[in-house]
Amino acid sequence: MQAQYQNLLANIRIVLCRPSHPGNIGAAARAMKTMGLSQLVLVEPKKFPHADAEAMASGAADVLESARVCESLEEALSGCVLAIGTSTRQRDLQTALLTPAEAASQALTEAQAGTVAFVFGNETFGLSREELARCQALMTIPANPEYSSLNLGAAVQVMAYELRRSALSETFAQPDLDAADLAEVERFYVHLEQAMIRIGFLNPASPKRLMPKLRRLFSRTRLQKEEINILRGMLSAMESSKNGEH
Amino acid sequence: MQAQYQNLLANIRIVLCRPSHPGNIGAAARAMKTMGLSQLVLVEPKKFPHADAEAMASGAADVLESARVCESLEEALSGCVLAIGTSTRQRDLQTALLTPAEAASQALTEAQAGTVAFVFGNETFGLSREELARCQALMTIPANPEYSSLNLGAAVQVMAYELRRSALSETFAQPDLDAADLAEVERFYVHLEQAMIRIGFLNPASPKRLMPKLRRLFSRTRLQKEEINILRGMLSAMESSKNGEH
Repeated sequence: MQAQYQNLLANIRIVLCRPSHPGNIGAAARAMKTMGLSQLVLVEPKKFPHADAEAMASGAADVLESARVCESLEEALSGCVLAIGTSTRQRDLQTALLTPAEAASQALTEAQAGTVAFVFGNETFGLSREELARCQALMTIPANPEYSSLNLGAAVQVMAYELRRSALSETFAQPDLDAADLAEVERFYVHLEQAMIRIGFLNPASPKRLMPKLRRLFSRTRLQKEEINILRGMLSAMESSKNGEH
Repeated sequence: MQAQYQNLLANIRIVLCRPSHPGNIGAAARAMKTMGLSQLVLVEPKKFPHADAEAMASGAADVLESARVCESLEEALSGCVLAIGTSTRQRDLQTALLTPAEAASQALTEAQAGTVAFVFGNETFGLSREELARCQALMTIPANPEYSSLNLGAAVQVMAYELRRSALSETFAQPDLDAADLAEVERFYVHLEQAMIRIGFLNPASPKRLMPKLRRLFSRTRLQKEEINILRGMLSAMESSKNGEH
């Protein structure tokens, strides 16, 4: 039987968005394995597979070989209940930035119930606004304000280290949320957008920032499975009622 | 005026012993700068300076340029009051292994009074027995027992991260020890060995493990400046007395 901490770490997914350098993918795989993580997902890697990735992975070739390649962050987050984005700078964010220790604690609490993703951006540009909007929490590694640019593999190493340390030293209360799979949440957003167009509240020719604002609202509250069902039922009823008018 | 935590971090020295890959030297420099460290010392680097080091250092070229190259660990530790060795495996060590957080706390307490070194070994072989014997404390990064081999740059990143976190969040009592400079301690060992040969207690043709055992004893107690003076006075008196016999 596996120890509890191993089950928790097995439910952590590392997602690298649009990594430019294959060496960093290998370094991330090695960093993960040293700390007992194994789920690596790559969104549009520039070069992969690649000899540089294999060289930097060293003894973590198995993590690299089982890495999944996706075409979008949405696809990468399917099956997850929580996505924590990583940021190296304080932007115009309306969300509080967690420390690595806080992020590890929250992630492992929820990892008792489902898969939790840590999302890392491109080496030069970080996470895009759209990628950040798909995360329900944000984390930053406190760094030297004069030079805060951690290498991608080094950032994964620090986060993986905190996860292992937290998994081995803390006990976690059951999560107080029966969080919906992020793929269900995405389907809800599609439904919501269609319904708002149908009832004339959203003009697809001039959508403004309506959907991003609604995304932010629902990211903050975190939707439960049952709530998704209620909301989609409401949207369906709204659409039927609208159709009924004609 | 610099903040207190910056003064403490300025007193931390990262020593890399016989690094094989110049890329790792650059990665270590970058890891250090992101966390506010600046003192890098290299003992017998295989290739340095090197383009790979510069490439991996990225925006930390200044740390790389000011790195000091030494011919021995002894030389690298000159001016330090404490050397903490890093180990990736539990060997036949008689010393307790500190966690990174414990090591950071001890290092920053003593960094109020002098320079503290973290000593990292070669990528493949780690620290040699002789190098370990020159450290007064040992630290390990808790890792996956099935694959505990952190990349050198990644290990420096984790330790530097812990140092910054600790420096920013803890307050440190004044060190309770007026520790001697490790260069003075080395001169004491030379004196001790000569004196023991002179009095016929140590046979240079068959020294056995006498000096390593005495080193371990004095490493454990940590010698103060005044104690070094007393011990060396005693050794001198012993030698004069011996000379007086003839």
